[in-house]
Amino acid sequence: MNNRNQLGKNAALLIMLLMTFQFAAFAQPTPAPRIVSPEIQKDNSVIFRLRAPEATSVKLGGTMNAGYAQLDMTKNADGIFEIKIDAPKPDMYVYTFIVDGVTTIDPSNNVVVRDGSHIESRLMIPGKLTDLFDSQDVPHGNVTAVWYPSPVFGVSRRMVIYTPPGYGQSSKSYPVLYLLHGGGGDEEAWTSRGRANYILDNLIAQGKAEPMIVVMPNGSIGHPAAPNERSYSADTQTTNVLDFNSMNSGKYEESLANDIIPFIEKNYRVIKDADHRALAGLSMGGLHVTNTFMANPDMFAYINVMSSGWFTNNKELYESGDKRLGEIAPTLEKTVKYMRFTQGGPEDIAYNNGKAMLEVFDKHNIEYEFSEMPGGHSWNVWRNDLKDFAPALFK
Amino acid sequence: MNNRNQLGKNAALLIMLLMTFQFAAFAQPTPAPRIVSPEIQKDNSVIFRLRAPEATSVKLGGTMNAGYAQLDMTKNADGIFEIKIDAPKPDMYVYTFIVDGVTTIDPSNNVVVRDGSHIESRLMIPGKLTDLFDSQDVPHGNVTAVWYPSPVFGVSRRMVIYTPPGYGQSSKSYPVLYLLHGGGGDEEAWTSRGRANYILDNLIAQGKAEPMIVVMPNGSIGHPAAPNERSYSADTQTTNVLDFNSMNSGKYEESLANDIIPFIEKNYRVIKDADHRALAGLSMGGLHVTNTFMANPDMFAYINVMSSGWFTNNKELYESGDKRLGEIAPTLEKTVKYMRFTQGGPEDIAYNNGKAMLEVFDKHNIEYEFSEMPGGHSWNVWRNDLKDFAPALFK
Repeated sequence: MNNRNQLGKNAALLIMLLMTFQFAAFAQPTPAPRIVSPEIQKDNSVIFRLRAPEATSVKLGGTMNAGYAQLDMTKNADGIFEIKIDAPKPDMYVYTFIVDGVTTIDPSNNVVVRDGSHIESRLMIPGKLTDLFDSQDVPHGNVTAVWYPSPVFGVSRRMVIYTPPGYGQSSKSYPVLYLLHGGGGDEEAWTSRGRANYILDNLIAQGKAEPMIVVMPNGSIGHPAAPNERSYSADTQTTNVLDFNSMNSGKYEESLANDIIPFIEKNYRVIKDADHRALAGLSMGGLHVTNTFMANPDMFAYINVMSSGWFTNNKELYESGDKRLGEIAPTLEKTVKYMRFTQGGPEDIAYNNGKAMLEVFDKHNIEYEFSEMPGGHSWNVWRNDLKDFAPALFK
Repeated sequence: MNNRNQLGKNAALLIMLLMTFQFAAFAQPTPAPRIVSPEIQKDNSVIFRLRAPEATSVKLGGTMNAGYAQLDMTKNADGIFEIKIDAPKPDMYVYTFIVDGVTTIDPSNNVVVRDGSHIESRLMIPGKLTDLFDSQDVPHGNVTAVWYPSPVFGVSRRMVIYTPPGYGQSSKSYPVLYLLHGGGGDEEAWTSRGRANYILDNLIAQGKAEPMIVVMPNGSIGHPAAPNERSYSADTQTTNVLDFNSMNSGKYEESLANDIIPFIEKNYRVIKDADHRALAGLSMGGLHVTNTFMANPDMFAYINVMSSGWFTNNKELYESGDKRLGEIAPTLEKTVKYMRFTQGGPEDIAYNNGKAMLEVFDKHNIEYEFSEMPGGHSWNVWRNDLKDFAPALFK
């Protein structure tokens, strides 16, 4: 039944339907007239706006401001706070408003991204790099949330899996990148904040990356799944504060090698050898990467440690690492085709740890590439690095 | 490499690592000491808290308050606003804080749910019904975001697909429920706010529902995908305000029958007959359901129209509906095993529309079940209804 003709005749009805359903859909008080925020100007400068007639102070924080600085917004006669900032470098950023001291998302922006407990509004500054993170008009892979049994932890845990365009229609087997998040994050970080699926879609469409499966597990031992996906009865409101066990117990690394990789190799069409396995991770995930390949030196041909390293005041860690690297250097030489260490410049808080750790790698003549880019300990660096790393895989 | 022993020896280092990585993971100013909100008491009363020493007024809004009423919170000596509310009925709710007039999520609660532009914090009040919406320790189906080609619209569009536990390990073919959202929503509404995947997991685990695939497309014509998933270059910040075209052009219904169902039947192991197809939707999605089965009366054996109906002042719609139902009544009688209309009681804004529409169904002796439950035009009704509807399918 096509109502087009009927309704074209009746503009009054149209308006009524619209209003009724707007109320209907939301079942909440009618919002004030819409304002635009953020508004990106032709020169990429950005105006942010918040209607807050009763507020005394509104500030703008965000990753486009150096050090997430909070900038004062100015209240106009309509009770709308505004600020215009100079054009940030084309990239993806996240931001918040601070309303009389309380951090909030931008209610005019329905694009919200989450990394662990950090829930922020999204800002895309147009440009070539940003286009690579965008949902473009190219074939898209599927993104699937999967629960897998973890005998190591004795529970089911959740992970997110990207299968490349064409996976469902072919009988081909694919290589796999295991991609790990940082402290406080979860299995949704690399898609929500990292845009990993769109980066892969775009690189594959451009012929720059091989079609591959990307497996994004949850590396926080204390939580089997992202906040909205775990049992409220067991744990409703606990924030993803850093779980020390996640970083240093060695259990997660054990689960990765013994639970996750076997699950993927059993349930997906993947090529089951080191040449077709890659392992990358950031910050805490970089420690997971290092621990995993040092325990399993014959497992991965491609390795990327982002913004991570051994803590320089942990002498024992350096001594045991030195010993272990001596033992496994010949195996790594046979197995590893590309090892990469990435840091977000000297302003990356993991920079010195990473540099010091690499001296131990140097001592054992383990080959690697050191990649440094400005941006500090941030998703701007990690997204950018994935874009450079993915094309080097499985070639 | 297992660092457990080394680190057990060094508590000071442990603390340092923790602090360093907390900063590292977030690269943002250190937050104030954590407060708990919401805190559910043993009797299910709830205390909400917000640290806001600089704010003058903080209110609590939410679906647990009748009419989403805003209740004043009281500031204590530490600058924390608090309120304690009586135990809401066990169920899932969403709420917001209103800080000096600005609506925000609860920064102490990292469980955020989204329905279109409505981004709110989650509240689960323990009880039997809530347990059915919970992520329990039962086998979980996969939830996949899939882009499909839409020849009807000439673009790719995104949908969310639930495959039941065991789908990937079996060679069995499954029945399919097509489950549609309301005005302003998108393909993520039924999982984020509707908990459809967990409801199905739990019903299947209890033997109450047949294992089935659930397809949740995006019924907003103006947007091919949820906000974070569509191209920023084409459309970054447009809120999902109601698109009149989505409701009444008939194009979405055409796409459902000609794009979505054929895509599912080609790419998934499904049983391709009316007896194994169900169609359900709420509000605007209820109009999509009605329009779709009236255009394709031989396509679905199971139908559920939630909180919807023809607008009572649209005489032409009633006349054409009357004529069409007369034409298709014999086909519906042969095809449909179970037709259900659900309303959230007289307080549901679609109640009168739905009742008036059903008089036309009655005139043609079309059999259906009318289900009425308190709760108005709300997700509390729709989730609850899915729990009752799913067990009736494919038996």
